[in-house]
Amino acid sequence: MFKINKKISKSLGRAGVLITSHGQIQTPAFVAVGTKATVKSLSPEQVASAGSQVVLANTYHLYLEPGEKIIKKAGGLHKFMNWQGPIMTDSGGFQVFSLGAAYGNNLSKFIGTKPLTLEEIKKVYSKKNEEKKAKITEDGVEFKSVIDGSKHFFTPEKSIQIQNNLGADIIFAFDECASPLVSKKYLQESMKRTHCWAERCLKEHRDLSQKKKHFPQALFGIVQGGRYEDLRKKSAKIIGKMDFDGFGIGGSFVKEDMATAVRWVNQILPEEKPRHLLGIGEPIDLILGVENGCDTFDCVAVTRMARNGSLYTKHGKINITNAKYKNLLKPIEKNCGCYTCQNYTTAYLSHLFRAKEMLAASLASIHNIYFLNNLMSQIRKSILENNFFEFKEEFLRIYKAN
Amino acid sequence: MFKINKKISKSLGRAGVLITSHGQIQTPAFVAVGTKATVKSLSPEQVASAGSQVVLANTYHLYLEPGEKIIKKAGGLHKFMNWQGPIMTDSGGFQVFSLGAAYGNNLSKFIGTKPLTLEEIKKVYSKKNEEKKAKITEDGVEFKSVIDGSKHFFTPEKSIQIQNNLGADIIFAFDECASPLVSKKYLQESMKRTHCWAERCLKEHRDLSQKKKHFPQALFGIVQGGRYEDLRKKSAKIIGKMDFDGFGIGGSFVKEDMATAVRWVNQILPEEKPRHLLGIGEPIDLILGVENGCDTFDCVAVTRMARNGSLYTKHGKINITNAKYKNLLKPIEKNCGCYTCQNYTTAYLSHLFRAKEMLAASLASIHNIYFLNNLMSQIRKSILENNFFEFKEEFLRIYKAN
Repeated sequence: MFKINKKISKSLGRAGVLITSHGQIQTPAFVAVGTKATVKSLSPEQVASAGSQVVLANTYHLYLEPGEKIIKKAGGLHKFMNWQGPIMTDSGGFQVFSLGAAYGNNLSKFIGTKPLTLEEIKKVYSKKNEEKKAKITEDGVEFKSVIDGSKHFFTPEKSIQIQNNLGADIIFAFDECASPLVSKKYLQESMKRTHCWAERCLKEHRDLSQKKKHFPQALFGIVQGGRYEDLRKKSAKIIGKMDFDGFGIGGSFVKEDMATAVRWVNQILPEEKPRHLLGIGEPIDLILGVENGCDTFDCVAVTRMARNGSLYTKHGKINITNAKYKNLLKPIEKNCGCYTCQNYTTAYLSHLFRAKEMLAASLASIHNIYFLNNLMSQIRKSILENNFFEFKEEFLRIYKAN
Repeated sequence: MFKINKKISKSLGRAGVLITSHGQIQTPAFVAVGTKATVKSLSPEQVASAGSQVVLANTYHLYLEPGEKIIKKAGGLHKFMNWQGPIMTDSGGFQVFSLGAAYGNNLSKFIGTKPLTLEEIKKVYSKKNEEKKAKITEDGVEFKSVIDGSKHFFTPEKSIQIQNNLGADIIFAFDECASPLVSKKYLQESMKRTHCWAERCLKEHRDLSQKKKHFPQALFGIVQGGRYEDLRKKSAKIIGKMDFDGFGIGGSFVKEDMATAVRWVNQILPEEKPRHLLGIGEPIDLILGVENGCDTFDCVAVTRMARNGSLYTKHGKINITNAKYKNLLKPIEKNCGCYTCQNYTTAYLSHLFRAKEMLAASLASIHNIYFLNNLMSQIRKSILENNFFEFKEEFLRIYKAN
């Protein structure tokens, strides 16, 4: 199900093809997030026209609303949301802990959008937030619904059953996603639990797969271990040996260490299987993620930023609500191939944002998703043409992160 | 510029073709409203795919934000909003009076969405609201911006100049749109002013047209006169004799009298010119409007209702947030040809509304706009095939207004 087309010499990176029951994904690839079975503000046709090959929906949210049973009855997520291409679902683990909420509200807003610096983590994380609202046992996790506060209990088996009903092409094992500031001792226990849950997920998946009449689902195991080299490597070794179809690299990274932590893991994971880096989507992080052996990436930040008027350009992000864009009769980015830049001026988009028109969110989301998809396709091309490092250098020379 | 294909025998109705610089409009036709140069929540491609031939933008709103100068500089409304088909702009008159606001806030919410019953008018209209915030003189109207409260002054000439800069295919003369509860005496004075302003609009339009390098704009005059037969007929006679390219029928109707008032006017207006009924969009009113000689119609209600989850079906409106739709795995309307019904279940749309997803507004708007466009195209077909009254009877037998 995964074919490597070409490797980057002297690094872990590669270009490949991930084959699913609903089509192929040319990798490296960015995965647009459609949390509640819709990529916010866009029709599936608009998502596809922005170059997306695959979307990721969230098990936690869909379990709570509208419920996985009605989605199964509708014929699965593909039919329900009218997306005929590949779909991933996460395990619900991250949301159970971040919204459930072991992290507290402040941190959950930040985590999952980008790697935080240590300073940022300290700023949003307080003792008060350490109070664990999600109750963790060896069996599973009890958490409260963000919608109505009702109590729910997830086990590894339950997560797999829900994902089986949702019917995505690629599903993830249920893991404990520990807060970035827990002690190393706690992280060790947590990781051990995640490994045990991984085995249970595999077993449940095998049992359900035998009963399944339709297309097969691929199950990805998740590597944890935080910022600790020994733990990350241990987790990669244990999870990497299990019979998963691919792997997710989860948990919180401290921004400065992200590339290093990913490298520790991917040096150990079996080369022939695909690797997904969870919750990472900043252009520079994507480039570093690919260089260090990751094939796919998902992140909500790209569309959330778009809805706030923050738009990618090859020189860095701009804020469209800035007064200087009010009269700019040029596209957001010269030569950008996206629908928005091909058909609208910056002045028009700026007007839509000022007027609080919904089309503002759609046009901005199309541009930002296209930007990341196009970046990934350029990275892929550079790998195939043996000039990844030249591409990286040139991109980073121009792009100003902020 | 207007060609009648076929008339309904023993009535004023007809099917025709309205030819503009940006394409033809098969009439009768519904005009989707794109107040701020965007039909709310939809891309132009989605508007077109819902069967819309023409959109109407609001001069008042675009004058205030982003300003007509930047739109002119962008190459006009068509380029600015990426709609290549025919565009209408209103004169700003209605908004100056309803938002400016001679009517007060309560009434302005209701007027322009549908004809009100006398009871409804009394409910939303109070003495307090009669206080005129827009200052009317023979020269023009001073009003306050809804955005920042700043003072502005519109004259008939100014309205035409703005509409000239916006560059729509069909523009409207500046009129005084009096409150539905003013005295007959006041309405007579107001109407006289509207007729005088009509002459001034025509003169300004002629002067500007001579300077215009691009395509010609058609100017429609507006008939006023409220619910009074003598005033409506007098207004139709005076405006009908002026050298307009077509006519708008404006002002407030009391729901019970709408068809009658329209008939009074259209018996007098020159038959060979197109007639637009302003602010009317309920299915039954559209049918009565066509029967009584109107060719085009615009209304914001269809998309506003959609955003609130109120959806048209041939049996009447339904509210998608009703619990009974949560698990309905069928389209909103069986055999509906719209994008939404062709690709999504009622359960999915219901989920999007519950989850407050933006795509809810888009899918619902597409369905409602399609419903009205399809209704108009069925009416047109019935006229061409000589069975309008059979169609009307069958539609009204099934459709339950609420």
